Amino acid sequence: MRMYDIIKKKRDGEELNTAEIDFFIKGYTDGSIPDYQASALIMAIFFSGMTARETTDLTLAMARSGEMMDLSLIDGETVDKHSTGGVGDKTTLIVAPIVAALGCKVAKMSGRGLGHTGGTVDKLESIPGFKVELSPERFLKQVNEIGICVIGQSGNLTPADKKLYALRDVTACIESIPLIASSVMSKKLAGGSQHIVLDVKCGSGAFIKDLEDAKELAVAMVKIGDMAGRKTNAVITNMDIPLGYYIGNTLEVIEAIEILKGEGCKDLKELCFVLASLMYSSCKGIDLNSARKEVEEVVLTGKALLKFKEMVKAQGGDVSVIDDVSKFEESLHRYEIKAPRDGYISRMNAEQIGIASVVLGAGREKKDDPIDYKAGIVLVKKTGDYVNKGEPIAILFTDLKDKIAEAEKLYINALKFSASKPKKQSLIYKIVRSISE
Amino acid sequence: MRMYDIIKKKRDGEELNTAEIDFFIKGYTDGSIPDYQASALIMAIFFSGMTARETTDLTLAMARSGEMMDLSLIDGETVDKHSTGGVGDKTTLIVAPIVAALGCKVAKMSGRGLGHTGGTVDKLESIPGFKVELSPERFLKQVNEIGICVIGQSGNLTPADKKLYALRDVTACIESIPLIASSVMSKKLAGGSQHIVLDVKCGSGAFIKDLEDAKELAVAMVKIGDMAGRKTNAVITNMDIPLGYYIGNTLEVIEAIEILKGEGCKDLKELCFVLASLMYSSCKGIDLNSARKEVEEVVLTGKALLKFKEMVKAQGGDVSVIDDVSKFEESLHRYEIKAPRDGYISRMNAEQIGIASVVLGAGREKKDDPIDYKAGIVLVKKTGDYVNKGEPIAILFTDLKDKIAEAEKLYINALKFSASKPKKQSLIYKIVRSISE
Repeated sequence: MRMYDIIKKKRDGEELNTAEIDFFIKGYTDGSIPDYQASALIMAIFFSGMTARETTDLTLAMARSGEMMDLSLIDGETVDKHSTGGVGDKTTLIVAPIVAALGCKVAKMSGRGLGHTGGTVDKLESIPGFKVELSPERFLKQVNEIGICVIGQSGNLTPADKKLYALRDVTACIESIPLIASSVMSKKLAGGSQHIVLDVKCGSGAFIKDLEDAKELAVAMVKIGDMAGRKTNAVITNMDIPLGYYIGNTLEVIEAIEILKGEGCKDLKELCFVLASLMYSSCKGIDLNSARKEVEEVVLTGKALLKFKEMVKAQGGDVSVIDDVSKFEESLHRYEIKAPRDGYISRMNAEQIGIASVVLGAGREKKDDPIDYKAGIVLVKKTGDYVNKGEPIAILFTDLKDKIAEAEKLYINALKFSASKPKKQSLIYKIVRSISE
Repeated sequence: MRMYDIIKKKRDGEELNTAEIDFFIKGYTDGSIPDYQASALIMAIFFSGMTARETTDLTLAMARSGEMMDLSLIDGETVDKHSTGGVGDKTTLIVAPIVAALGCKVAKMSGRGLGHTGGTVDKLESIPGFKVELSPERFLKQVNEIGICVIGQSGNLTPADKKLYALRDVTACIESIPLIASSVMSKKLAGGSQHIVLDVKCGSGAFIKDLEDAKELAVAMVKIGDMAGRKTNAVITNMDIPLGYYIGNTLEVIEAIEILKGEGCKDLKELCFVLASLMYSSCKGIDLNSARKEVEEVVLTGKALLKFKEMVKAQGGDVSVIDDVSKFEESLHRYEIKAPRDGYISRMNAEQIGIASVVLGAGREKKDDPIDYKAGIVLVKKTGDYVNKGEPIAILFTDLKDKIAEAEKLYINALKFSASKPKKQSLIYKIVRSISE
């Protein structure tokens, strides 16, 4: 088999067989296939596309390129959740304890933040003492004991995806549905859970801006999951507006605690309930409405918050900050952004707002940049709200005084105003169910 | 400027500007742009295409990536000729002396053979003593003195094209009209001649099999030449049948001498007259019919053959072999292939016949393979001829006795037979004239 022929076949719009896809991923991972041939192939895939069968084969080949988590020792239904990335997305911190409190097993590996989006692992690490690097034995033991453990991604998980993603990133091959779908799903398959719920973000703060693209991606990923024997459901959700009111690591933990207490932002709560219901109904094989009732109840009774505290304690975190969030360390500077004019906020560029939070120290531009857990933004007014000129619309938190002006400018420029009330945006665009439902 | 943005722009079907194309070629030549980004771009060009303006910019950027021949010291109109490569194509050996005898200046750099096609430089080197590596000074001096000099390509000519061609070759990006056109024309522009005549081969022995593709390529190359200020004409010609009756280096020199004597294969002679007429009419600004008359006359009077001998002598070759071709060294083995059945030869796969000659030692599979000048094939019967079973249809010449069976098998398999006489194939499909004509 020759890589040349594989490139040519895909270039000519033909379907690659399983052996050809395996040959490519194996050879690219071990270095016998050079970057320049891999980049020619991925550009050909960008143009020619891939069938569901090819995409599933690619996903499986990438999943098998490294370590595969073996969750067979876990007693019960394992469930994983993935978001394609957004601004202010702290849903994992909320839905994971909810479904664990309902008896699902959450053995989850999460990522770090990069660019304008944050990562669950950074958020958890903002809790003093919280450890995200555990041995596989301790990870499995914790899941069996309390039903939940969230750690960072293992170094040897899906090396093929890591290498291919880095190549796509410098060759303008990110925006390809089969390549995005296989990248996400390879990590989920390697993660080992039997049930998968995907949150496909769509809008100005997501890397997918167009609803049709989001639908195509959601369908592609659900198909892969199903074909690979994992029960997979997806929700396509709004990322034209940052999720919730808090952006930044400590700030998002605080907002997650609010939701787990049954308080806080209505939209964020609704999305968490939808995601948790899908996860729970998938694990238990019950309908969504029944699942939803139990999800709401487990929050109302405080059991979900208790589960969150159990996890924090088990992973070495300081539980006292959960009970009293004022104990979290605070930024040196607190700055109010005032409305530059009267009117309705008609649009927020969530990506620009994410970048403003990175400027304040809350995120990373490059992979190994340091991060300031305390830094971030509290939104006071969001899309659809009326504001009077001079009234506070957001609060910036940072230790970097000289970055405030830049962040403020980014924030103001991210907003559009209108005289008339804008049409209310949907929160949930669509649910794509597993074919096995 | 970032290579990433250039890839993305072409990926999205947009037109690259001159600065972007220059940035790519400069960066790729000096190594600051890596192979994997270049291969992503060329695959995007394969799919998205390029306008005539972009293709011309790419050609000029590649031509300028290395040395540009300065032919301004040559007194008279300089003319170059290029064939996209075929089997048995010895036309340069014939048309160059014809037009030089008519007063055009032929300062020509030619290539070596690779794969199933031969190269003019190898053919000339099969004349004992013939030197194809001359200093630029001696090259120009010879052209000024006798009007003709044919040498090998300088090491520093179009380095960008060399690097890009090698990359296209391993990433399935050869078959792209703008990339082929710019590769050919960059070498012609760097070669420095004012007039260019292109022989675009089309058929089983050419790398372009389809007439529509050949037309597109011819038009693209003529446009580039014209836009770059060189008067450029192209002929699209049949390569479904090997050209002439002799394949192999010494053998092709012998056939070229036959044509220069006014004898030999009618089709080969016709093509040479068409090419020479185009070259001469372009240089002198006269019509094709008048040019054709002078071309025929310069052969009839023996002046063209004399010019060929002048060149051979000037470049150190043994002229006595021209006067008596039986002086050429002969292969150890001579083997007659017999017709496997009665019938008309209805089709010859010229590429397979070219490969058979390589097997016998006449060509190279890899760039630095040695070559046996004596080896080759003399065709006895060609497409359209009737053969009786057992009658000789071709003669193989080689020193490699153990390769004869393989070559014979290739040769026989390259033929198709029919009971009825096949329709006669055209020799010249189309002439694409310079817009300045």
